[in-house]
Amino acid sequence: MTTEAAGAGALLAILRDGRARTRTELMQLTGLARSTVSQRLDALLDREWITPAGDAISSGGRPAVAFAFNGEARLVLSADLGATHARIAVTDLKTRVLAEHTQDMPISQGPEHVLGWLVDAFGALLDDCGRTLADVCGAGIGLPGPVEHGTGRPVNPPIMPGWDGFDVSQWLRERLGAPVLVDNDVNIMALGEHWAAGDECEHLLFVKVGTGIGSGIITEHRLHRGAQGAAGDIGHIRVLSAGDQLCRCGNTGCLEAVAGGAALAARLRALGEDAADARGVVQLVRSGSPLAVQLVRQTGRDIGEVLASLVNFFNPGVIVVGGDLADAGEHLLAGIREVVYSRSLPLATQHLTMRGRLLGDRAGVVGAAVMVIEDALSPQAVDRSVTTG
Amino acid sequence: MTTEAAGAGALLAILRDGRARTRTELMQLTGLARSTVSQRLDALLDREWITPAGDAISSGGRPAVAFAFNGEARLVLSADLGATHARIAVTDLKTRVLAEHTQDMPISQGPEHVLGWLVDAFGALLDDCGRTLADVCGAGIGLPGPVEHGTGRPVNPPIMPGWDGFDVSQWLRERLGAPVLVDNDVNIMALGEHWAAGDECEHLLFVKVGTGIGSGIITEHRLHRGAQGAAGDIGHIRVLSAGDQLCRCGNTGCLEAVAGGAALAARLRALGEDAADARGVVQLVRSGSPLAVQLVRQTGRDIGEVLASLVNFFNPGVIVVGGDLADAGEHLLAGIREVVYSRSLPLATQHLTMRGRLLGDRAGVVGAAVMVIEDALSPQAVDRSVTTG
Repeated sequence: MTTEAAGAGALLAILRDGRARTRTELMQLTGLARSTVSQRLDALLDREWITPAGDAISSGGRPAVAFAFNGEARLVLSADLGATHARIAVTDLKTRVLAEHTQDMPISQGPEHVLGWLVDAFGALLDDCGRTLADVCGAGIGLPGPVEHGTGRPVNPPIMPGWDGFDVSQWLRERLGAPVLVDNDVNIMALGEHWAAGDECEHLLFVKVGTGIGSGIITEHRLHRGAQGAAGDIGHIRVLSAGDQLCRCGNTGCLEAVAGGAALAARLRALGEDAADARGVVQLVRSGSPLAVQLVRQTGRDIGEVLASLVNFFNPGVIVVGGDLADAGEHLLAGIREVVYSRSLPLATQHLTMRGRLLGDRAGVVGAAVMVIEDALSPQAVDRSVTTG
Repeated sequence: MTTEAAGAGALLAILRDGRARTRTELMQLTGLARSTVSQRLDALLDREWITPAGDAISSGGRPAVAFAFNGEARLVLSADLGATHARIAVTDLKTRVLAEHTQDMPISQGPEHVLGWLVDAFGALLDDCGRTLADVCGAGIGLPGPVEHGTGRPVNPPIMPGWDGFDVSQWLRERLGAPVLVDNDVNIMALGEHWAAGDECEHLLFVKVGTGIGSGIITEHRLHRGAQGAAGDIGHIRVLSAGDQLCRCGNTGCLEAVAGGAALAARLRALGEDAADARGVVQLVRSGSPLAVQLVRQTGRDIGEVLASLVNFFNPGVIVVGGDLADAGEHLLAGIREVVYSRSLPLATQHLTMRGRLLGDRAGVVGAAVMVIEDALSPQAVDRSVTTG
């Protein structure tokens, strides 16, 4: 079978909305001949992408068989690897989480150690579901650093010693026997929150405020990665309050030099408080430390200064604030809103929603699954799978 | 004929690359039955979207007829209406400019005066080409202010008295008898420069430095308008050198308060120089005024400060600088490059091109034509035209 304008993948794309349809309905929707529709349905049935969905009501004569998308046909493995923690999941093709697991796993232990653990952990999760690698159509991995999207390799990641240029995608593909997509963790969180926000949310900005500060950009329902895949790196935009403060990037006055978990924890320690990292800052806020609350709110204002510019430029419908510091309650968002509403243009803020996550800590694994599913169920990929499989 | 997954529009989309194809080739490319392909080709021939392109070489028997996209099938009217000048053109469906005209036309004269003139001027241009309104498939209009894209109405445009909420699209459609698309002038310039830059340029930022400062954003080859159509409004982003300078928007410290033609001319006048507007500033630069050169370079640095942030965030492949002040030669670009290279992240600037326009003053009319052509030749629009026409 050749790859055609309305191939098996196009049929599957129609059926993905969940409705079962008969041969005749599919002929009408595609303009394809009955024999072509039948041939393609057979290929999809053969690969279990679809299932017969019982007899549909017919206009007379014998009942026509309807066919429906089989969301359980394949599984997706997904992982959100952070600086110190890992969260992994198994989902079906409808992004339903079937099993998940979290644990401490410092990314600094290097690719072979972390990815070796990951392969074992995926295997254990599959066991829990009573399934095997043979059921897996792909894996999606989020990493806490810049990733070249085409190849899935980290590019000069600052907090990932040993990972620069490592072929994460191929290393895992050889061990999992399925395609592996790799992206920056903030990008997959943006994908997850966009999926959760629903179809009406066309332009979304996800801001992660953890140890550092980054963002993931959704435009017209798709991830904007930029020319070098570097889009969203807002931590090194200059802010007024940073003055000439030296940043780890070598420049001065960057947002990350004054805001973000690492900078806040350092300032709190200098003031005699006990805060090792972003989570320590959140604990201080929760314990009622006025100093910590004041600093988190100021961090919100500093981030708000950057977002105010980006709201004018990008005009998102929704800004979602996540990351460890987002767990400090409304203080961070309050500071952000204060500055965005005072500095952005009224037209761009009149319908703007700024809020916390809908998916909480699951945004990453859900987004990684969405990335894999969109890829695996694209008409081209389904046509290929039907042709070669 | 119903709108189907591979309708007449899909056939035309295949033929738009310029290659002629036979019935058999189109059957192979679409998977459609011979009778369906024939029926759709007949509809396209009937509407003159395609022409028989001579006999193709056949593998034996009588030669098969090939069909090709007919770029001359329809005309497009396009207009780039600026604050004080208007440029209008007639193009074919391949964006070739067949006739054009420019003249002084202050937008402040109000919609009925300006648009009334426009209808007459379009008529005169069509006469020059020996064609009539019956040949026109649509008109594209750029306006120097914010436009609600869905309805084509200006929204609180600051320099367009009488235009707020005026239904430009409907007013013109009634007089031209064809669909009319309206957008912000910077957006259509971005479309034009993206078209000129070619297929490899996926993410482009067009910056217009005229009386004010604005930008048009192309992501994955498409215009990013944002949730309220307000995207690209970078003139009111805060810059360090503006301090507490009051801006016309009511805020302080905006880019436009210190950079842009109006601010520069005012500062040069305060220094005893003769500069009425952006063009006056360019004249001073060309006459060798060191003060004017110094100020234009500083304007470049101020714009560069904003662009440095946007390069980190958006990671464009190309930044095109246009507008009246861009005619001040390399001084403006030199200031922009100075700051972007010093402030943006290396990954985002390593392959970044920052340059002047390829289309010069024609960017707007070419972009307006591109907007209309993409709309008129979309598969859905062609299917509709074939069904209803």
